[in-house]
Amino acid sequence: MADALRPIEITRNFTKHAEGSVLMACGDTKVLCTASIEEKVPPFLRGAGKGWVTAEYSMLPRATQDRMQRESAKGKISGRTHEIQRLIGRSLRAAVDLQALGERTIWVDCDVLQADGGTRTASITGACLAVADALQTLRKNGKVQGNPLRDWVAAISVGMYQGQAVLDLDYAEDSHAEVDMNVVMTGAGAFVEVQGTAEGAVFSDQEMAAMLALARQGIRDLIARQREEIPEALP
Amino acid sequence: MADALRPIEITRNFTKHAEGSVLMACGDTKVLCTASIEEKVPPFLRGAGKGWVTAEYSMLPRATQDRMQRESAKGKISGRTHEIQRLIGRSLRAAVDLQALGERTIWVDCDVLQADGGTRTASITGACLAVADALQTLRKNGKVQGNPLRDWVAAISVGMYQGQAVLDLDYAEDSHAEVDMNVVMTGAGAFVEVQGTAEGAVFSDQEMAAMLALARQGIRDLIARQREEIPEALP
Amino acid sequence: MADALRPIEITRNFTKHAEGSVLMACGDTKVLCTASIEEKVPPFLRGAGKGWVTAEYSMLPRATQDRMQRESAKGKISGRTHEIQRLIGRSLRAAVDLQALGERTIWVDCDVLQADGGTRTASITGACLAVADALQTLRKNGKVQGNPLRDWVAAISVGMYQGQAVLDLDYAEDSHAEVDMNVVMTGAGAFVEVQGTAEGAVFSDQEMAAMLALARQGIRDLIARQREEIPEALP
Amino acid sequence: MADALRPIEITRNFTKHAEGSVLMACGDTKVLCTASIEEKVPPFLRGAGKGWVTAEYSMLPRATQDRMQRESAKGKISGRTHEIQRLIGRSLRAAVDLQALGERTIWVDCDVLQADGGTRTASITGACLAVADALQTLRKNGKVQGNPLRDWVAAISVGMYQGQAVLDLDYAEDSHAEVDMNVVMTGAGAFVEVQGTAEGAVFSDQEMAAMLALARQGIRDLIARQREEIPEALP
Amino acid sequence: MADALRPIEITRNFTKHAEGSVLMACGDTKVLCTASIEEKVPPFLRGAGKGWVTAEYSMLPRATQDRMQRESAKGKISGRTHEIQRLIGRSLRAAVDLQALGERTIWVDCDVLQADGGTRTASITGACLAVADALQTLRKNGKVQGNPLRDWVAAISVGMYQGQAVLDLDYAEDSHAEVDMNVVMTGAGAFVEVQGTAEGAVFSDQEMAAMLALARQGIRDLIARQREEIPEALP
Amino acid sequence: MADALRPIEITRNFTKHAEGSVLMACGDTKVLCTASIEEKVPPFLRGAGKGWVTAEYSMLPRATQDRMQRESAKGKISGRTHEIQRLIGRSLRAAVDLQALGERTIWVDCDVLQADGGTRTASITGACLAVADALQTLRKNGKVQGNPLRDWVAAISVGMYQGQAVLDLDYAEDSHAEVDMNVVMTGAGAFVEVQGTAEGAVFSDQEMAAMLALARQGIRDLIARQREEIPEALP
Repeated sequence: MADALRPIEITRNFTKHAEGSVLMACGDTKVLCTASIEEKVPPFLRGAGKGWVTAEYSMLPRATQDRMQRESAKGKISGRTHEIQRLIGRSLRAAVDLQALGERTIWVDCDVLQADGGTRTASITGACLAVADALQTLRKNGKVQGNPLRDWVAAISVGMYQGQAVLDLDYAEDSHAEVDMNVVMTGAGAFVEVQGTAEGAVFSDQEMAAMLALARQGIRDLIARQREEIPEALP
Repeated sequence: MADALRPIEITRNFTKHAEGSVLMACGDTKVLCTASIEEKVPPFLRGAGKGWVTAEYSMLPRATQDRMQRESAKGKISGRTHEIQRLIGRSLRAAVDLQALGERTIWVDCDVLQADGGTRTASITGACLAVADALQTLRKNGKVQGNPLRDWVAAISVGMYQGQAVLDLDYAEDSHAEVDMNVVMTGAGAFVEVQGTAEGAVFSDQEMAAMLALARQGIRDLIARQREEIPEALP
Repeated sequence: MADALRPIEITRNFTKHAEGSVLMACGDTKVLCTASIEEKVPPFLRGAGKGWVTAEYSMLPRATQDRMQRESAKGKISGRTHEIQRLIGRSLRAAVDLQALGERTIWVDCDVLQADGGTRTASITGACLAVADALQTLRKNGKVQGNPLRDWVAAISVGMYQGQAVLDLDYAEDSHAEVDMNVVMTGAGAFVEVQGTAEGAVFSDQEMAAMLALARQGIRDLIARQREEIPEALP
Repeated sequence: MADALRPIEITRNFTKHAEGSVLMACGDTKVLCTASIEEKVPPFLRGAGKGWVTAEYSMLPRATQDRMQRESAKGKISGRTHEIQRLIGRSLRAAVDLQALGERTIWVDCDVLQADGGTRTASITGACLAVADALQTLRKNGKVQGNPLRDWVAAISVGMYQGQAVLDLDYAEDSHAEVDMNVVMTGAGAFVEVQGTAEGAVFSDQEMAAMLALARQGIRDLIARQREEIPEALP
Repeated sequence: MADALRPIEITRNFTKHAEGSVLMACGDTKVLCTASIEEKVPPFLRGAGKGWVTAEYSMLPRATQDRMQRESAKGKISGRTHEIQRLIGRSLRAAVDLQALGERTIWVDCDVLQADGGTRTASITGACLAVADALQTLRKNGKVQGNPLRDWVAAISVGMYQGQAVLDLDYAEDSHAEVDMNVVMTGAGAFVEVQGTAEGAVFSDQEMAAMLALARQGIRDLIARQREEIPEALP
Repeated sequence: MADALRPIEITRNFTKHAEGSVLMACGDTKVLCTASIEEKVPPFLRGAGKGWVTAEYSMLPRATQDRMQRESAKGKISGRTHEIQRLIGRSLRAAVDLQALGERTIWVDCDVLQADGGTRTASITGACLAVADALQTLRKNGKVQGNPLRDWVAAISVGMYQGQAVLDLDYAEDSHAEVDMNVVMTGAGAFVEVQGTAEGAVFSDQEMAAMLALARQGIRDLIARQREEIPEALP
């Protein structure tokens, strides 16, 4: 249905080494999101008394219908990958109180095991859970005071498809959508990012409003799922 | 003023080899935009009977307050550059009828000679003029039938700065803005791209509406300037 | 125990796009092995009337105790990765009749989701199952005549640890072993590869014989598991 | 005419951020030359009590008749670019008293906006003016004692074209010249560099003498122009 | 003959700058092996009170029948080169007492001037002599106490060729061998490395035993030659 | 002596695979120069009915007093290397009649085994002999008509050292020379290249004349040696 999320499946502690490790499935899209704590910050923050959250994103070569060449084999990261990992990083920094985090870095890794549309939004939603788990570890170990998790953050894609606003597009819909919009919001209902893109088309005020309304509703549901998973993360 | 564009200066034919060459100045931001016609298309379009528009963006090392290292010397293109050149390319493809263009590519090069905020939006607005000039050349030479220019496209940045919606931020404003939004629209008043980003902050529906209203007005003015410059491009 | 394999868990069809997709778990080591069919061969084989099998190997950044930098971010593949993917490729070519495969390539991708020693040998054993599944697909589609699977191939690590020959070392054992040997064998009991390495130590004929005996027994068990999983692959 | 310089146009302060910024036009060749002061030296000079001058050179992709691929997109700098930027750096170091400069680096950037032959020599002549402006800034700010500008330096190309020695070749001449020579000299009339190259040809003592005589006269005129522009730089 | 080494020729001090410099010829394979002392260790060993031995390997472009492209021109090192230089490094670390070496690094460079099979094993055997010479220099200069050379190390290739075990394969044999095994042993007769590889074939226990017996005898002869060359290195 | 060449030693057929292979020793500088024939031309010459000569240059890591990092390990070629290999290529193209060569490429490889100043000039002089040998092979095999060798080409360095013009500088002289000039000439006494460089100094007309006179005499001697070596190459 145009206004329904695809089935969500969340598996925490999917791998054992990371401080947070979540396998996030949205329909047939499956992303392994890990959050790793490093006890130092990048050079531009040294001595600033606050922390950082950064993200990397990659697809396994056969996550897709046709096998794609590895970026390590090509020797460089594509523009699309750069764009996505910058988006994930900014989105998660909105969820974290960097002062309360202290001088440490959270490395978020989103590795797409299986792709069927919406990999960047599934990455954000899943990674927020992984970050929440990692922050719980820090709290239990007494490494931070207070709660560095400011709010939940989740993301969803919406689009105009066959003239209609559609929520949570799968790959078949996405590749034929006239407009594609990724929206990131907080539990408090504020925007973190809005990225609407028309490839070979344009969109009106009314279409934008319809897409944003769907996105708002979808994100509300996703954040409800996040709260259920780790209620103690943000009481 | 918060709702005013900075002074615009447009110099066509700034360099002599390119089919379109525009020096676009928006306040102290100066971008040399060229459009080059290549009589072939990328592999994924071969034989499809239509053309392509692609863009590259770069800053001269001392376009900025402090000298930046060249990307050619670093041996790779930054994520920021990738993100911007993908945005410019998509925006200009909205202005061009790729069928009418025929099997050729327009290479758009945006080289920032001097930066003071808004380099990506000045690039789009200036490059649309360079593309229009290049298309005029194709029409005069009888290489295309009809007019491949579908509509004018221009872009502007807006943001939330000290709690207020502000149009066309310069570097000083941009680096302290809570929210930064780049908007690309057509002469017909439709959206091509909306990219709103809150670094370490969030924004509400009301703030988004205020920013979009300012952007709409600024782009209307920019497109009026484009029409004046080359009235024959889109009669 | 020194002469026991760690628990084996095999999940076929772990992802949906690849012709063969196996999650191979050996103790806490978990490797996603996919086999992808491409209907062409590398340049050096064009027109030779036979096929090719090639492999790529990678570890997710937080597959390990400490997060490792991605090779795509570093822009180059390490010597260790090169060594491992060449080993996997050679091993699987021993399992496949390249004439019967015809002019196509099987791309094997081994992505380590969680590492606890023996990732290269788990990759070989799991990838052989993924290849077998992919070859079954080719047979069902009538694309090949006869059976391109010549024999099962599996691999195990053995080593000298605290003066004793040990089978299937986990990470804790492996990092303190005096000698580390990876052995690849066929279902018929022949060697494909023997790679014995002493870092800062040496080993005698007797130690080599003890290690090879353990390896032979471990591989026999692994190949029994392969046969059970896909009995129809090699009747 | 064979023994005449093309028209020279010098625009100082072409951009606002750099300590020295000169748009140098020699005929249709236009190079933006900036000089940037950095308050540190490369590792090999640390603690040596003297400074350094280094240069980078690049052409905008459509500075030329046909669009050239960016070196940042190729991921590496061509041999030609390396050769030119080493030449520019050496030439300008002849103009500067590195002891008097003190422990700082002057980064010279020469970006060709439009090319019509002689881009490397125009770069040297223009960059010397940019360096002179940057040194004036240092003097005004009391950062240096004495005058680090030792002498003016300018450069010109000469060649053998249709059997005749020719001064200041444009692109059409240069691409058909039998011999191409770049000469760099000081205001005192001494050589800094002489690089004579015969591609698919050779040249005699007499031809060399004829070319050097033309070069000497051309450089004298160029240095007269430099003196006029900034007489206070070297009283 | 199948069980004979090719003629060995050892030229010490082939070049003058390196602390050890040996031209090692095995039949028509000629490798220049140098050992260079650097008075520091890699980061992972700093402060550990012991040294390191590392190796690099390369072939001149026309060392081979057909000219090969340089790895510096390709911008990356092949998997084969990585594999070989890791093997050489590990082998030589078995020859050196890293504690006795002290906090310094021996850089071993093996550059193949002419290739006719067995370049990696000739590299190891020759490099051990170069290392022995370099260690003698350290001893004469009183930089080390005791003797950091623990034992001689040499290497040889064996293989199965036309159904028979063969020692020291030249290129013609090697490229048609069914099995190729490189063996590294010490003067005391212990194994350092055993790397047996069957490309498109397999090998039995009996074949492995036959190959190892040949290798053992070949290495005994090579180490006898090493002792003769520098008897004082390991009295 | 300031006006004497260092001792020259020429070893032809130093390696066996290349069509021409010369070990060129000038004093303690030793360069292995090979010429390889490839039966095709670069893309820009296809169908033009003529051939090409191109050169690559490299130093072994321990050719120098201190070990240098390999360019293959750094992943890129330095500016100095680019400059030198372009010089060698241009110089040898002056020696070869590209029409008579026919549609084939001569790859010249100059690998410095031991460096003591003048490596680029020794490379040119030695490579000309290797090219002559390779051309003889083509002539004997009836692959070319006439003689593609137009003239001998040799090179030497001269400089100003302690106020005096000096021929054939070794490393100690070269690193203290005020001016360094590389001269390439033909057997007929014409210039191919003149590259005079003053690092931190300048030079006068008189000094240039003195250096050129020395170079002319040195090259005459070198070409006499070339003629003696292969008199049949250019009867």
